Amino acid sequence: MAQKTAPDSTRRSERSRRAIYEAALALVGEVGYPKMTIEAIAARAGVGKQTIYRWWPSKSAVLLDAFLDLSEQASAELSEKAGLDEVATAIPDTGDLEADLKYVLRATVDEMTNPKFDAPARALAAEGVVNEQLGAEFLEKLLEPQLQLYVDRLRAAKEQGQVAPGIDPRIALELWTGPLAQRWMQRTGPLSHAYADKLVEYALYGIAPR
Amino acid sequence: MAQKTAPDSTRRSERSRRAIYEAALALVGEVGYPKMTIEAIAARAGVGKQTIYRWWPSKSAVLLDAFLDLSEQASAELSEKAGLDEVATAIPDTGDLEADLKYVLRATVDEMTNPKFDAPARALAAEGVVNEQLGAEFLEKLLEPQLQLYVDRLRAAKEQGQVAPGIDPRIALELWTGPLAQRWMQRTGPLSHAYADKLVEYALYGIAPR
Repeated sequence: MAQKTAPDSTRRSERSRRAIYEAALALVGEVGYPKMTIEAIAARAGVGKQTIYRWWPSKSAVLLDAFLDLSEQASAELSEKAGLDEVATAIPDTGDLEADLKYVLRATVDEMTNPKFDAPARALAAEGVVNEQLGAEFLEKLLEPQLQLYVDRLRAAKEQGQVAPGIDPRIALELWTGPLAQRWMQRTGPLSHAYADKLVEYALYGIAPR
Repeated sequence: MAQKTAPDSTRRSERSRRAIYEAALALVGEVGYPKMTIEAIAARAGVGKQTIYRWWPSKSAVLLDAFLDLSEQASAELSEKAGLDEVATAIPDTGDLEADLKYVLRATVDEMTNPKFDAPARALAAEGVVNEQLGAEFLEKLLEPQLQLYVDRLRAAKEQGQVAPGIDPRIALELWTGPLAQRWMQRTGPLSHAYADKLVEYALYGIAPR
Protein backbone atom coordinates (compact mmCIF):
# COMPACT_ATOMS: atom_id res chain seq x y z
CA MET A 1 0.00 0.00 0.00
CA ALA A 2 2.74 2.47 0.92
CA GLN A 3 5.16 3.91 -1.68
CA LYS A 4 2.56 3.59 -4.43
CA THR A 5 3.45 5.68 -7.44
CA ALA A 6 1.48 8.94 -7.38
CA PRO A 7 -0.78 9.22 -10.40
CA ASP A 8 -0.21 12.18 -12.66
CA SER A 9 -2.39 15.12 -11.76
CA THR A 10 -4.15 14.85 -15.13
CA ARG A 11 -5.52 11.51 -13.91
CA ARG A 12 -7.26 13.08 -10.93
CA SER A 13 -10.71 11.70 -10.84
CA GLU A 14 -13.23 14.49 -11.20
CA ARG A 15 -15.63 12.46 -9.12
CA SER A 16 -13.17 12.09 -6.23
CA ARG A 17 -12.26 15.74 -6.37
CA ARG A 18 -15.89 16.77 -6.13
CA ALA A 19 -16.56 14.29 -3.31
CA ILE A 20 -13.59 15.67 -1.39
CA TYR A 21 -14.80 19.27 -1.83
CA GLU A 22 -18.30 18.40 -0.71
CA ALA A 23 -16.99 16.47 2.29
CA ALA A 24 -14.70 19.35 3.33
CA LEU A 25 -17.49 21.95 3.03
CA ALA A 26 -19.96 19.77 4.94
CA LEU A 27 -17.48 18.90 7.69
CA VAL A 28 -16.21 22.38 8.35
CA GLY A 29 -19.80 23.55 8.75
CA GLU A 30 -20.58 20.69 11.13
CA VAL A 31 -17.53 20.55 13.39
CA GLY A 32 -15.70 23.83 12.71
CA TYR A 33 -12.23 24.36 11.24
CA PRO A 34 -10.10 23.35 14.25
CA LYS A 35 -11.77 19.92 14.55
CA MET A 36 -11.90 19.18 10.83
CA THR A 37 -9.27 16.57 9.84
CA ILE A 38 -7.97 15.20 6.54
CA GLU A 39 -8.91 11.73 7.86
CA ALA A 40 -12.54 12.73 8.33
CA ILE A 41 -12.72 14.38 4.90
CA ALA A 42 -11.29 11.22 3.31
CA ALA A 43 -13.72 8.94 5.16
CA ARG A 44 -16.70 11.07 4.22
CA ALA A 45 -15.63 11.39 0.59
CA GLY A 46 -14.98 7.64 0.35
CA VAL A 47 -11.35 8.07 -0.70
CA GLY A 48 -8.04 7.15 0.90
CA LYS A 49 -6.28 9.71 3.09
CA GLN A 50 -3.28 9.46 0.75
CA THR A 51 -5.42 10.58 -2.18
CA ILE A 52 -5.98 13.87 -0.42
CA TYR A 53 -2.36 14.29 0.66
CA ARG A 54 -1.23 13.57 -2.89
CA TRP A 55 -3.19 16.56 -4.19
CA TRP A 56 -3.18 19.02 -1.29
CA PRO A 57 -0.52 19.79 1.32
CA SER A 58 -2.91 20.74 4.14
CA LYS A 59 -6.54 20.92 5.19
CA SER A 60 -6.58 24.68 4.60
CA ALA A 61 -5.50 24.06 0.99
CA VAL A 62 -8.36 21.56 0.45
CA LEU A 63 -10.86 23.96 1.95
CA LEU A 64 -9.60 26.89 -0.07
CA ASP A 65 -10.01 24.93 -3.31
CA ALA A 66 -13.44 23.75 -2.20
CA PHE A 67 -14.51 27.37 -1.67
CA LEU A 68 -13.03 28.52 -4.95
CA ASP A 69 -15.00 25.75 -6.64
CA LEU A 70 -18.18 26.73 -4.77
CA SER A 71 -17.86 30.35 -5.82
CA GLU A 72 -17.19 29.32 -9.44
CA GLN A 73 -20.37 27.27 -9.32
CA ALA A 74 -22.25 30.28 -7.96
CA SER A 75 -20.89 32.48 -10.78
CA ALA A 76 -21.88 29.85 -13.34
CA GLU A 77 -25.42 29.66 -11.96
CA LEU A 78 -25.67 33.45 -11.98
CA SER A 79 -24.40 33.68 -15.55
CA GLU A 80 -26.85 31.02 -16.65
CA LYS A 81 -29.69 32.87 -14.91
CA ALA A 82 -28.65 36.02 -16.75
CA GLY A 83 -28.71 34.12 -20.04
CA LEU A 84 -24.98 34.48 -20.67
CA ASP A 85 -23.13 31.88 -22.75
CA GLU A 86 -19.91 32.24 -20.77
CA VAL A 87 -19.32 32.47 -17.04
CA ALA A 88 -19.05 36.12 -16.04
CA THR A 89 -15.79 36.87 -14.22
CA ALA A 90 -16.40 40.61 -13.82
CA ILE A 91 -19.12 42.88 -12.46
CA PRO A 92 -21.47 43.62 -15.37
CA ASP A 93 -20.98 46.97 -17.08
CA THR A 94 -24.18 48.13 -18.75
CA GLY A 95 -23.07 51.74 -18.32
CA ASP A 96 -25.46 52.12 -15.37
CA LEU A 97 -23.42 51.71 -12.17
CA GLU A 98 -26.44 51.77 -9.86
CA ALA A 99 -28.24 49.01 -11.76
CA ASP A 100 -25.11 46.87 -12.07
CA LEU A 101 -24.27 47.12 -8.37
CA LYS A 102 -27.83 46.28 -7.37
CA TYR A 103 -27.76 43.24 -9.63
CA VAL A 104 -24.55 41.92 -8.11
CA LEU A 105 -25.47 42.75 -4.52
CA ARG A 106 -28.83 40.99 -4.82
CA ALA A 107 -26.95 37.92 -6.04
CA THR A 108 -24.55 38.23 -3.11
CA VAL A 109 -27.49 38.31 -0.70
CA ASP A 110 -28.89 35.18 -2.37
CA GLU A 111 -25.54 33.44 -1.92
CA MET A 112 -25.18 34.53 1.72
CA THR A 113 -28.64 33.22 2.57
CA ASN A 114 -28.13 29.92 0.73
CA PRO A 115 -27.62 27.15 3.33
CA LYS A 116 -25.14 25.35 1.04
CA PHE A 117 -22.89 28.38 1.30
CA ASP A 118 -23.80 29.67 4.74
CA ALA A 119 -22.61 26.91 7.09
CA PRO A 120 -19.13 26.30 5.62
CA ALA A 121 -18.53 30.00 4.97
CA ARG A 122 -19.43 30.85 8.57
CA ALA A 123 -17.03 28.24 9.93
CA LEU A 124 -14.30 29.64 7.74
CA ALA A 125 -15.05 33.29 8.49
CA ALA A 126 -15.10 32.56 12.23
CA GLU A 127 -11.72 30.83 12.08
CA GLY A 128 -10.23 33.64 9.99
CA VAL A 129 -11.12 36.15 12.73
CA VAL A 130 -8.87 34.43 15.29
CA ASN A 131 -6.41 32.52 13.05
CA GLU A 132 -4.34 35.21 11.38
CA GLN A 133 -2.54 32.88 8.99
CA LEU A 134 -5.71 31.23 7.69
CA GLY A 135 -7.43 34.62 7.51
CA ALA A 136 -4.58 36.00 5.40
CA GLU A 137 -4.61 32.99 3.07
CA PHE A 138 -8.32 33.27 2.37
CA LEU A 139 -8.18 37.03 2.07
CA GLU A 140 -5.43 36.79 -0.54
CA LYS A 141 -6.85 33.93 -2.59
CA LEU A 142 -10.60 34.28 -2.21
CA LEU A 143 -11.85 37.58 -0.80
CA GLU A 144 -9.47 40.19 -2.22
CA PRO A 145 -9.85 38.97 -5.86
CA GLN A 146 -13.61 39.41 -5.43
CA LEU A 147 -13.17 42.90 -4.00
CA GLN A 148 -10.87 43.79 -6.91
CA LEU A 149 -13.77 43.17 -9.32
CA TYR A 150 -15.49 46.16 -7.70
CA VAL A 151 -12.30 48.20 -8.02
CA ASP A 152 -12.30 47.50 -11.78
CA ARG A 153 -15.98 48.36 -12.12
CA LEU A 154 -15.59 51.58 -10.12
CA ARG A 155 -12.59 52.64 -12.21
CA ALA A 156 -14.69 52.22 -15.36
CA ALA A 157 -17.51 54.17 -13.71
CA LYS A 158 -15.07 56.96 -12.89
CA GLU A 159 -14.09 57.20 -16.55
CA GLN A 160 -17.80 57.33 -17.42
CA GLY A 161 -18.24 60.19 -14.93
CA GLN A 162 -20.47 58.15 -12.58
CA VAL A 163 -18.01 58.21 -9.68
CA ALA A 164 -16.48 61.48 -8.40
CA PRO A 165 -12.80 62.00 -9.33
CA GLY A 166 -11.43 62.10 -5.76
CA ILE A 167 -12.95 58.78 -4.70
CA ASP A 168 -10.66 55.83 -3.85
CA PRO A 169 -12.38 52.74 -5.35
CA ARG A 170 -10.74 50.33 -2.87
CA ILE A 171 -12.39 52.18 0.01
CA ALA A 172 -15.65 53.01 -1.80
CA LEU A 173 -16.52 49.34 -2.37
CA GLU A 174 -16.51 48.78 1.39
CA LEU A 175 -19.62 50.95 1.68
CA TRP A 176 -21.55 47.86 0.52
CA THR A 177 -19.26 44.90 1.16
CA GLY A 178 -18.78 46.04 4.77
CA PRO A 179 -22.47 46.29 5.70
CA LEU A 180 -23.25 42.98 3.94
CA ALA A 181 -20.37 41.24 5.73
CA GLN A 182 -21.44 42.68 9.09
CA ARG A 183 -25.11 41.70 8.68
CA TRP A 184 -24.02 38.24 7.64
CA MET A 185 -21.35 37.65 10.31
CA GLN A 186 -22.90 39.50 13.25
CA ARG A 187 -26.54 39.00 12.28
CA THR A 188 -27.29 42.68 12.88
CA GLY A 189 -30.26 42.68 10.50
CA PRO A 190 -32.01 40.83 7.68
CA LEU A 191 -30.27 40.31 4.32
CA SER A 192 -32.77 41.12 1.58
CA HIS A 193 -32.84 42.53 -1.93
CA ALA A 194 -34.48 45.71 -0.64
CA TYR A 195 -31.60 46.15 1.79
CA ALA A 196 -29.03 45.56 -0.98
CA ASP A 197 -30.74 48.23 -3.11
CA LYS A 198 -30.71 50.78 -0.28
CA LEU A 199 -27.00 50.21 0.36
CA VAL A 200 -26.21 50.96 -3.26
CA GLU A 201 -28.34 54.12 -3.23
CA TYR A 202 -26.88 55.41 0.04
CA ALA A 203 -23.33 54.67 -1.09
CA LEU A 204 -23.74 56.36 -4.45
CA TYR A 205 -25.64 59.47 -3.39
CA GLY A 206 -24.75 59.78 0.31
CA ILE A 207 -27.03 60.34 3.27
CA ALA A 208 -26.62 64.13 3.39
CA PRO A 209 -29.17 66.15 1.37
CA ARG A 210 -28.12 66.73 -2.24
CA MET B 1 -17.40 24.54 52.86
CA ALA B 2 -20.58 23.67 51.00
CA GLN B 3 -23.90 25.31 51.84
CA LYS B 4 -22.19 28.56 52.83
CA THR B 5 -24.64 31.45 52.95
CA ALA B 6 -24.39 33.44 49.73
CA PRO B 7 -23.26 37.00 50.46
CA ASP B 8 -25.60 39.79 49.49
CA SER B 9 -24.78 41.23 46.10
CA THR B 10 -23.90 44.55 47.74
CA ARG B 11 -21.06 42.73 49.47
CA ARG B 12 -19.47 41.70 46.19
CA SER B 13 -15.86 42.52 46.43
CA GLU B 14 -14.94 45.02 43.74
CA ARG B 15 -11.49 43.52 43.66
CA SER B 16 -12.76 39.99 42.98
CA ARG B 17 -15.17 41.23 40.35
CA ARG B 18 -12.39 43.02 38.50
CA ALA B 19 -10.07 40.02 38.79
CA ILE B 20 -12.79 37.79 37.35
CA TYR B 21 -13.41 40.15 34.41
CA GLU B 22 -9.71 40.41 33.65
CA ALA B 23 -9.29 36.63 33.86
CA ALA B 24 -12.27 36.02 31.55
CA LEU B 25 -11.04 38.53 28.95
CA ALA B 26 -7.48 37.18 29.04
CA LEU B 27 -8.60 33.54 28.85
CA VAL B 28 -11.05 33.93 25.99
CA GLY B 29 -8.33 35.65 23.98
CA GLU B 30 -5.84 32.88 24.75
CA VAL B 31 -7.88 29.68 24.38
CA GLY B 32 -11.05 30.82 22.58
CA TYR B 33 -14.63 30.73 23.82
CA PRO B 34 -15.32 26.97 23.47
CA LYS B 35 -12.33 26.01 25.67
CA MET B 36 -12.81 28.74 28.26
CA THR B 37 -14.20 27.32 31.53
CA ILE B 38 -15.54 28.81 34.75
CA GLU B 39 -12.91 26.72 36.58
CA ALA B 40 -10.07 28.32 34.63
CA ILE B 41 -11.47 31.83 35.16
CA ALA B 42 -11.73 31.17 38.90
CA ALA B 43 -8.19 29.78 39.11
CA ARG B 44 -6.73 32.71 37.22
CA ALA B 45 -8.70 35.28 39.20
CA GLY B 46 -7.71 33.61 42.49
CA VAL B 47 -11.31 33.09 43.59
CA GLY B 48 -13.38 29.99 44.26
CA LYS B 49 -15.49 28.55 41.45
CA GLN B 50 -18.54 29.03 43.65
CA THR B 51 -17.87 32.77 43.85
CA ILE B 52 -18.38 32.97 40.11
CA TYR B 53 -21.45 30.72 40.07
CA ARG B 54 -22.96 32.78 42.87
CA TRP B 55 -22.89 35.91 40.71
CA TRP B 56 -23.25 34.61 37.15
CA PRO B 57 -25.25 31.70 35.76
CA SER B 58 -22.88 30.86 32.87
CA LYS B 59 -19.57 31.65 31.24
CA SER B 60 -21.30 33.71 28.56
CA ALA B 61 -22.84 35.88 31.30
CA VAL B 62 -19.42 36.50 32.91
CA LEU B 63 -17.91 37.37 29.56
CA LEU B 64 -20.78 39.69 28.63
CA ASP B 65 -20.36 41.64 31.88
CA ALA B 66 -16.60 41.72 31.38
CA PHE B 67 -17.12 43.27 27.93
CA LEU B 68 -19.71 45.74 29.18
CA ASP B 69 -17.21 46.79 31.83
CA LEU B 70 -14.42 47.09 29.25
CA SER B 71 -16.51 49.28 27.00
CA GLU B 72 -17.55 51.45 29.96
CA GLN B 73 -13.86 51.90 30.77
CA ALA B 74 -13.21 52.87 27.16
CA SER B 75 -16.04 55.44 27.27
CA ALA B 76 -14.68 56.82 30.53
CA GLU B 77 -11.17 57.18 29.06
CA LEU B 78 -12.59 58.87 25.98
CA SER B 79 -14.67 61.28 28.06
CA GLU B 80 -11.65 62.13 30.19
CA LYS B 81 -9.56 62.73 27.06
CA ALA B 82 -12.29 65.04 25.79
CA GLY B 83 -12.20 66.94 29.09
CA LEU B 84 -15.75 65.98 30.05
CA ASP B 85 -16.74 65.78 33.72
CA GLU B 86 -19.19 62.95 33.14
CA VAL B 87 -18.92 59.79 31.08
CA ALA B 88 -20.48 60.39 27.67
CA THR B 89 -23.19 57.86 26.86
CA ALA B 90 -24.17 59.35 23.50
CA ILE B 91 -22.47 60.39 20.27
CA PRO B 92 -21.45 64.05 20.70
CA ASP B 93 -23.77 66.59 19.06
CA THR B 94 -21.90 69.79 18.27
CA GLY B 95 -24.31 70.48 15.40
CA ASP B 96 -21.67 69.30 12.91
CA LEU B 97 -22.48 65.68 11.99
CA GLU B 98 -19.32 65.13 9.94
CA ALA B 99 -17.02 66.30 12.75
CA ASP B 100 -18.91 64.32 15.40
CA LEU B 101 -18.82 61.09 13.39
CA LYS B 102 -15.12 61.48 12.64
CA TYR B 103 -14.43 62.00 16.32
CA VAL B 104 -16.28 58.84 17.35
CA LEU B 105 -14.94 56.70 14.49
CA ARG B 106 -11.35 57.67 15.24
CA ALA B 107 -11.94 56.57 18.83
CA THR B 108 -13.46 53.31 17.56
CA VAL B 109 -10.35 52.69 15.46
CA ASP B 110 -8.18 53.31 18.54
CA GLU B 111 -10.23 50.80 20.51
CA MET B 112 -10.14 48.19 17.72
CA THR B 113 -6.35 48.44 17.46
CA ASN B 114 -5.81 48.34 21.24
CA PRO B 115 -4.43 44.88 22.17
CA LYS B 116 -6.37 44.91 25.46
CA PHE B 117 -9.57 44.96 23.43
CA ASP B 118 -8.49 43.16 20.29
CA ALA B 119 -7.75 39.61 21.52
CA PRO B 120 -10.86 39.02 23.65
CA ALA B 121 -13.14 40.81 21.19
CA ARG B 122 -11.85 38.68 18.31
CA ALA B 123 -12.47 35.47 20.25
CA LEU B 124 -15.98 36.62 21.00
CA ALA B 125 -16.72 37.87 17.49
CA ALA B 126 -15.46 34.60 16.00
CA GLU B 127 -17.66 32.54 18.30
CA GLY B 128 -20.69 34.72 17.54
CA VAL B 129 -20.33 33.96 13.83
CA VAL B 130 -20.91 30.23 14.36
CA ASN B 131 -22.75 30.17 17.71
CA GLU B 132 -26.13 31.72 16.98
CA GLN B 133 -27.27 31.87 20.59
CA LEU B 134 -24.12 33.61 21.86
CA GLY B 135 -24.13 35.90 18.83
CA ALA B 136 -27.72 36.93 19.57
CA GLU B 137 -26.97 37.56 23.25
CA PHE B 138 -24.04 39.83 22.50
CA LEU B 139 -25.85 41.58 19.69
CA GLU B 140 -28.77 42.40 21.98
CA LYS B 141 -26.81 43.45 25.04
CA LEU B 142 -23.61 44.92 23.63
CA LEU B 143 -23.61 45.70 19.91
CA GLU B 144 -27.16 46.89 19.17
CA PRO B 145 -27.19 49.44 22.06
CA GLN B 146 -24.01 50.93 20.56
CA LEU B 147 -25.56 51.04 17.09
CA GLN B 148 -28.64 52.75 18.53
CA LEU B 149 -26.46 55.67 19.64
CA TYR B 150 -25.87 56.36 15.94
CA VAL B 151 -29.60 56.08 15.25
CA ASP B 152 -30.22 58.80 17.86
CA ARG B 153 -27.48 61.04 16.47
CA LEU B 154 -28.73 60.60 12.88
CA ARG B 155 -32.30 61.42 13.92
CA ALA B 156 -31.06 64.65 15.47
CA ALA B 157 -29.05 65.37 12.30
CA LYS B 158 -32.20 64.81 10.23
CA GLU B 159 -34.03 67.43 12.30
CA GLN B 160 -31.09 69.78 11.73
CA GLY B 161 -31.33 69.16 7.98
CA GLN B 162 -27.95 67.41 7.78
CA VAL B 163 -29.41 64.04 6.75
CA ALA B 164 -31.81 63.70 3.81
CA PRO B 165 -35.47 63.08 4.79
CA GLY B 166 -35.81 59.67 3.10
CA ILE B 167 -32.80 58.09 4.82
CA ASP B 168 -33.30 55.19 7.28
CA PRO B 169 -30.84 55.88 10.14
CA ARG B 170 -30.62 52.18 11.12
CA ILE B 171 -29.27 51.34 7.65
CA ALA B 172 -27.25 54.54 7.18
CA LEU B 173 -25.06 53.85 10.21
CA GLU B 174 -23.91 50.60 8.61
CA LEU B 175 -22.06 52.61 5.95
CA TRP B 176 -19.33 53.11 8.57
CA THR B 177 -19.91 50.39 11.17
CA GLY B 178 -19.91 47.74 8.40
CA PRO B 179 -16.59 48.70 6.80
CA LEU B 180 -14.92 49.09 10.20
CA ALA B 181 -16.21 45.67 11.33
CA GLN B 182 -15.09 44.04 8.08
CA ARG B 183 -11.58 45.55 8.19
CA TRP B 184 -11.28 44.48 11.79
CA MET B 185 -12.70 40.95 11.45
CA GLN B 186 -11.44 40.03 7.98
CA ARG B 187 -8.28 42.19 8.03
CA THR B 188 -9.10 43.55 4.56
CA GLY B 189 -7.09 46.73 5.15
CA PRO B 190 -5.46 48.98 7.74
CA LEU B 191 -7.57 50.69 10.42
CA SER B 192 -6.42 54.30 10.66
CA HIS B 193 -7.82 57.74 11.44
CA ALA B 194 -7.46 58.73 7.79
CA TYR B 195 -9.57 55.72 6.80
CA ALA B 196 -12.22 56.58 9.40
CA ASP B 197 -12.40 60.13 8.03
CA LYS B 198 -12.84 58.91 4.44
CA LEU B 199 -15.65 56.56 5.46
CA VAL B 200 -17.55 59.44 7.04
CA GLU B 201 -17.07 61.65 3.98
CA TYR B 202 -18.09 58.93 1.50
CA ALA B 203 -21.13 58.00 3.59
CA LEU B 204 -22.32 61.57 3.97
CA TYR B 205 -21.76 62.82 0.42
CA GLY B 206 -21.76 59.61 -1.65
CA ILE B 207 -19.28 58.45 -4.24
CA ALA B 208 -21.27 59.73 -7.26
CA PRO B 209 -20.44 63.29 -8.39
CA ARG B 210 -22.52 65.94 -6.61
